[in-house]
Amino acid sequence: MQVTEIIAKKRDGNLLSTDEITWLIQKYTQGQIPDYQMAAWLMAVYWRGMDARETSDLTMAITRSGEQLYVRDTISPVIDKHSTGGVGDKVTLAVAPLVAACGVAVGKMTGRGLGHTGGTVDKLESIRGFRATLSRAEFLAILQKHRIVLAGQSSDLAPADGKLYALRDVTGTIESVPLIASSIMSKKLAIGASHLLLDVKFGNGAFMKTTQQAYELAQTMVEIGRSSGLHTVAAITSMEQPLGCAIGNALEMAEAIAILRGEGPEDVSELCYHEAAELLLMTGKVTSAEEADTLIQNTIQSGAAVQKLAEIIAAQDGDRQQIEDPRLLPQAPVRVMLTAPCAGYIASIHAEHIGIASMNLGAGRFKKGDPVDHRTGLVLQAKVGAHLNAGDPLIEIHARDEHEAASIQSALLACYTWSEVPVQPQPLIHTVIRP
Amino acid sequence: MQVTEIIAKKRDGNLLSTDEITWLIQKYTQGQIPDYQMAAWLMAVYWRGMDARETSDLTMAITRSGEQLYVRDTISPVIDKHSTGGVGDKVTLAVAPLVAACGVAVGKMTGRGLGHTGGTVDKLESIRGFRATLSRAEFLAILQKHRIVLAGQSSDLAPADGKLYALRDVTGTIESVPLIASSIMSKKLAIGASHLLLDVKFGNGAFMKTTQQAYELAQTMVEIGRSSGLHTVAAITSMEQPLGCAIGNALEMAEAIAILRGEGPEDVSELCYHEAAELLLMTGKVTSAEEADTLIQNTIQSGAAVQKLAEIIAAQDGDRQQIEDPRLLPQAPVRVMLTAPCAGYIASIHAEHIGIASMNLGAGRFKKGDPVDHRTGLVLQAKVGAHLNAGDPLIEIHARDEHEAASIQSALLACYTWSEVPVQPQPLIHTVIRP
Repeated sequence: MQVTEIIAKKRDGNLLSTDEITWLIQKYTQGQIPDYQMAAWLMAVYWRGMDARETSDLTMAITRSGEQLYVRDTISPVIDKHSTGGVGDKVTLAVAPLVAACGVAVGKMTGRGLGHTGGTVDKLESIRGFRATLSRAEFLAILQKHRIVLAGQSSDLAPADGKLYALRDVTGTIESVPLIASSIMSKKLAIGASHLLLDVKFGNGAFMKTTQQAYELAQTMVEIGRSSGLHTVAAITSMEQPLGCAIGNALEMAEAIAILRGEGPEDVSELCYHEAAELLLMTGKVTSAEEADTLIQNTIQSGAAVQKLAEIIAAQDGDRQQIEDPRLLPQAPVRVMLTAPCAGYIASIHAEHIGIASMNLGAGRFKKGDPVDHRTGLVLQAKVGAHLNAGDPLIEIHARDEHEAASIQSALLACYTWSEVPVQPQPLIHTVIRP
Repeated sequence: MQVTEIIAKKRDGNLLSTDEITWLIQKYTQGQIPDYQMAAWLMAVYWRGMDARETSDLTMAITRSGEQLYVRDTISPVIDKHSTGGVGDKVTLAVAPLVAACGVAVGKMTGRGLGHTGGTVDKLESIRGFRATLSRAEFLAILQKHRIVLAGQSSDLAPADGKLYALRDVTGTIESVPLIASSIMSKKLAIGASHLLLDVKFGNGAFMKTTQQAYELAQTMVEIGRSSGLHTVAAITSMEQPLGCAIGNALEMAEAIAILRGEGPEDVSELCYHEAAELLLMTGKVTSAEEADTLIQNTIQSGAAVQKLAEIIAAQDGDRQQIEDPRLLPQAPVRVMLTAPCAGYIASIHAEHIGIASMNLGAGRFKKGDPVDHRTGLVLQAKVGAHLNAGDPLIEIHARDEHEAASIQSALLACYTWSEVPVQPQPLIHTVIRP
């Protein structure tokens, strides 16, 4: 096969064969195809797209570029979940132990955050001693013993994805549905759970800005799941305002604990319960939404949900006391409360700009490899639709010092728009796509 | 400036600024932008195209990437000509000395052939001793003394073009009008003649397959000339059947000599006279087509045209006796005449396949750097529209050995289609675009 012919074929809008896609990814992973040819091919894919069969072929080729875990051979059913990321998105931290406490195993690998959207691993690492890096044997042993494991992404899984992502990042070829879908799904297939729930976010704080884009991506990933034997459901959810109230690593960890205790903010708690219910239904643990709700509420009320989080934290060498008493989580030395500048209804809270403000406090990364400060972040005191009077608490800044806290105040106030008449917040869940 | 932003801007179909294009080419030439980013950008340009201003900016940026000769500072007017290449295209070999003998200076750099279309340098090198590689000083001195110079392309001119072309060749980004136009015109601008005649060929033996593609390329190059002060005219000419009768290096050299003696095949002779007349008119040497024709015919009849060729060959260390007596040119050891398999009118002669047959005899290159055999090639005995009886001479093979001659016979016969009714050949010149 000739790389230039494969590039030209895609450039001219033709379909590539399974053999061509497999060969291309294999040779690229082995270093036998140079980056410049792959870059031209990626731009041609960005331009012409890929159909469902090509996208599945690409995903499988990336999956097969490295080790495969096949966690469903260890325990089944076993669920995985993935969010495309947003501001204040601590859903995985709550849903994973909640579902595990309901009796469905969870084998999850999760990434570090890049930019203003924090990663689940960063949030977990706000707990003293917690160890995200696990060997294959440890991963499987913890899963078998505790029916839950929350590890960092292994670079042995789907190594072609890491290589392709780095190239896409510098060649203007990130925002392509088949490339994004194959990047996400190849890692999921390499882990090899039996069921996968995707949370595809849209809105100003998400990677996909419109519901249309989110829908296309979700649909593509559900189809990849279908054609590769991974039962996949995708929820399309709003990321116009931050999710819940806490933004920042330890702050989000504390909010996840509150959700597992039934004391979390309403919006994010409902999303967590909805996702947990979907997982219980998918795996056949329950047969109706009502049955799911009852099981979830009982698991929360009994304390089993938060105990499951404490259990897995301890299993991965973390300090379970910080789960049982979240006041022991790392605290920022400076707290400053911003108040409402006027009376009115909150009409919008710009999620992306809130995320950037939090990144400026040290809670996020400007570039790969930057350290994060687990203590810092923001806590919303009111959300879209709330009525405040001038001087009411609006948002609390958790900062390393007074100077940093002061430096973001005007940017934070600019994240809000106000209305004199009541405002109805958008529903969080837009659509659910089932296979 | 950020490369990724420039890639994304073009990818999204936006216009790039002059500064962006200049910066990109400059940094790429300096090795500060990696090939993989340039490859993605090239594919985005292939996809989105460039407008006239962007294409001119790109051309000027490539021109400025290296040395500039400014031949018009040495002698003016001074003409340059360029053909996009075809099978049997020896027009430059005849037109350059013809125009010089008519009193208009010619400063030309010319490439080696790649594939089935031979290069003018290869044809010139069929003459014993001829030296195509000249220093800048030699080039200018020969031009001043003889009012003509025919050199090989200097790698000091427009080095960005060589780098870009090599990358385009392996990334499926060759066939893009702004990229082709800027590649050709940047080298012409670096030489710096005052007038340029382009011969843009279309048809199965040409790079551009349709008149539409040829027209677009020609129009783009005339526009680049206009915006950069190089008076440019483009003739769009047919390359459906080979040009003239001879295909191969020494064979085409001999045919060029015949044209300069007024004894060449009708089609190619007329094209040469037409191009020479266009150049004489462009530069103001004559004021009417009739005056041009008279001057050209007188120059041929007096022997001045062929003497001019002999003069420049000698000035570049070639053996002028081979010009004065073309029987002294290198001869292939084996000649085989193929005859017409049937009676009828020749309806078509597939130029590209004739070119490939000639390449298989050693007259062309399969890949860059291959040697060429100056002796071998083909001589058509009749052209489209001619009536032959079965057994009449059709095409003569000039080969290194009997085996090679035999191996291409059936492929050659397959190049012909026949008609029982008379066939009118297409006119060679389709359109002339003037600024």
